[in-house]
Amino acid sequence: MDYRGIFEDAVDTLRAEKRYRVFADLERVAGQFPRAIYRDDADNMRDITIWCSNDYLGMGQHAKVIGAMQDTASKLGVGSGGTRNISGTNRPLVELERSLADLHRKEAALVFTSGFVSNEAAISTIGRLLPDGIIFSDQLNHASMIQGVRQSGMQKVIFRHNDVAHLRDLLAATDRKRPKLICFESVYSMDGDVAPIKEICDLAEEFGALTYIDEVHAVGMYGERGGGIAEREGLMDRIDIIEGTLAKGFGTMGGYITANRAIVDAVRSYAPEFIFTTSLPPALCAAARASIEHLKGSSHERMMHQRQARLTKAILADAGLPVMETETHIVPLIVGDARAVKAASDMLLDKHNIYIQPINYPTVPKGTERLRITPTPLHTDEMIFALRHALVSVWTSLELPREPADAKITASKLTSGDLTLPTIGG
Amino acid sequence: MDYRGIFEDAVDTLRAEKRYRVFADLERVAGQFPRAIYRDDADNMRDITIWCSNDYLGMGQHAKVIGAMQDTASKLGVGSGGTRNISGTNRPLVELERSLADLHRKEAALVFTSGFVSNEAAISTIGRLLPDGIIFSDQLNHASMIQGVRQSGMQKVIFRHNDVAHLRDLLAATDRKRPKLICFESVYSMDGDVAPIKEICDLAEEFGALTYIDEVHAVGMYGERGGGIAEREGLMDRIDIIEGTLAKGFGTMGGYITANRAIVDAVRSYAPEFIFTTSLPPALCAAARASIEHLKGSSHERMMHQRQARLTKAILADAGLPVMETETHIVPLIVGDARAVKAASDMLLDKHNIYIQPINYPTVPKGTERLRITPTPLHTDEMIFALRHALVSVWTSLELPREPADAKITASKLTSGDLTLPTIGG
Repeated sequence: MDYRGIFEDAVDTLRAEKRYRVFADLERVAGQFPRAIYRDDADNMRDITIWCSNDYLGMGQHAKVIGAMQDTASKLGVGSGGTRNISGTNRPLVELERSLADLHRKEAALVFTSGFVSNEAAISTIGRLLPDGIIFSDQLNHASMIQGVRQSGMQKVIFRHNDVAHLRDLLAATDRKRPKLICFESVYSMDGDVAPIKEICDLAEEFGALTYIDEVHAVGMYGERGGGIAEREGLMDRIDIIEGTLAKGFGTMGGYITANRAIVDAVRSYAPEFIFTTSLPPALCAAARASIEHLKGSSHERMMHQRQARLTKAILADAGLPVMETETHIVPLIVGDARAVKAASDMLLDKHNIYIQPINYPTVPKGTERLRITPTPLHTDEMIFALRHALVSVWTSLELPREPADAKITASKLTSGDLTLPTIGG
Repeated sequence: MDYRGIFEDAVDTLRAEKRYRVFADLERVAGQFPRAIYRDDADNMRDITIWCSNDYLGMGQHAKVIGAMQDTASKLGVGSGGTRNISGTNRPLVELERSLADLHRKEAALVFTSGFVSNEAAISTIGRLLPDGIIFSDQLNHASMIQGVRQSGMQKVIFRHNDVAHLRDLLAATDRKRPKLICFESVYSMDGDVAPIKEICDLAEEFGALTYIDEVHAVGMYGERGGGIAEREGLMDRIDIIEGTLAKGFGTMGGYITANRAIVDAVRSYAPEFIFTTSLPPALCAAARASIEHLKGSSHERMMHQRQARLTKAILADAGLPVMETETHIVPLIVGDARAVKAASDMLLDKHNIYIQPINYPTVPKGTERLRITPTPLHTDEMIFALRHALVSVWTSLELPREPADAKITASKLTSGDLTLPTIGG
């Protein structure tokens, strides 16, 4: 049996479809984000600017966050010692969960090692505990939610993306006595669009369904204290389970759910992904909590984040680049072809010292391959102009398409208020 | 619909079966392991000795490991910035994977956020890529392996625990042309027994199967450089995929596989659990690597570990306590009843300041509930004698059963060589 050949063939398929991923070897430099050191195959190093980080606010390099990690490591050591049950529950982790419950105004929170595991463990466990339950899942839900739904063993019904009328029809067609769970995201990370949370909550109330929202691309970044889009809209109390991550806006690592005590206790008690996993290191918990608490009290990062995202969208659209209009901080530039987006990404890195990785199928549908740009509060106006220059040059060199139908943003539409620099502490 | 009631009922079921888990709130103190601070429900704190840590060698508090975390955090910050593809591959992570590949003498390694995810992602992905494959899985494999097998969609065949004759029969009954994967562990963590690795490799060769071994309870602790039981037995090159953890012997966090380049590249390219998860923080990678590299060069911790485990088993057995005979560092004390094991655990903590959490179904079969003791190199001889004293007192107070049929170890059987203290660097 030629096993090696089987695995090589599987990978060759990706190469042939230009979907083979090569990871860029980057070294972040504390205090210099979004600048980093890139190391090429020949081990040559040079400075680059990262334009695709999910450390959306640069909190992974915040002095308070680094300090909390170092301080806790010196006092408590590195590892937690085991699973939560086997000597792995520690003070910084307990405090982190309290901070998260408070952030979302819920009774309890539970921390996992990643957002992926949070979704998989929580959705599958909640689903298994609902007898004869049925799950309503947005068509564009993340792979981790899909995995959770599949493992729940529940009957699954897909509603069209953000389509409240379709969801209503599906709910109305379902036996009122069956337990129901509606799963959706607040910010969809590839298109940067936002769910109609209020309308979904209204339907959940009308039809007696539980609501589960994934806010991983929103926590830290939206709402008065960084509680996400649901906080901004004043809807946190209408969502039963809020799932989030510590690895994006909060700049560290791990995932979590917050909900009422009964739900959290059930997931804690039944989810094998949780029960059989070593808990997060205390130093990482302390770092995450420092980040959350900082962002509860400071809106400066959020305001600068929105400003730089608006400016980036306007400047790029004004240069005739195919910016997809979004309501959020995510700036997709549609290329529409796997080979072309890879070439554009390579040229940006090689010629312009700018790193934006290509986004391909299955992360996005074929034909919508893109560069996904994520401006942060730490990208300066000068960096945005340098990005425009580089992109225009690449678009010209590779003869990439400009101006898709939905590129409606231009710099001339921005009002002066849009770009006012927030004051520190504002 | 009374959703809250449904979840409360689910948890009440566990309470009724005395399987409801209460996590002890512990604060490790760097440099004092296995001592820690316990905080009770009323927030009172007191010093206790942990006897059930999976930080088996105490490496989570090793100065080199703490130093590596602090140093890297100061230079690179905390978070990695994203998934491996989205700006999350960093130098310490690349170096960690090289260190792991070298540890197991394999072409490549891939790091995940936990051992659970390693098993789930690797087994399910490898299984999905083997057309019409069949998996042979040890009956006592860990929950994470079972989850991986289930998600692979492969046909699954269970062989009796460590039963080579049964495995042979099952292999012989299977079409020779079908791809085969044999999944097993080296050390089974609840009974502390060891798989017949050589015999399984012989069968794999004879019947043309891939071999997948979980060495999470062995890496760092066995073999000349800490490569695990397969290294000790000179069998690493006969195993196709070696899975391990960074969270037990290495004292940090995360899981990994090592294998040939084709297998690692296929898992890297196809596993959603890997693709869609933010990578480990650079500081954590550096800490893990410091631990691995230290243990490659130092056998002192391994020798002290074995000595203290042997001594603990002998001393407890000599006192008439029901020590299960094991070949490894794991010392199970069988109680055989969920209520009794909880009472014993509570009394050890309340009266003797010793923390050993109860092990219940489904982690072990009903009727074999136990205290699972894990001596480390940092437990002193005095601590072992104090443990004996406390256990004898608890066993007497609660009138727990002594002397199970298989408690064959006694202190009088130890030779003086068994307890010679290894010299530093030995």
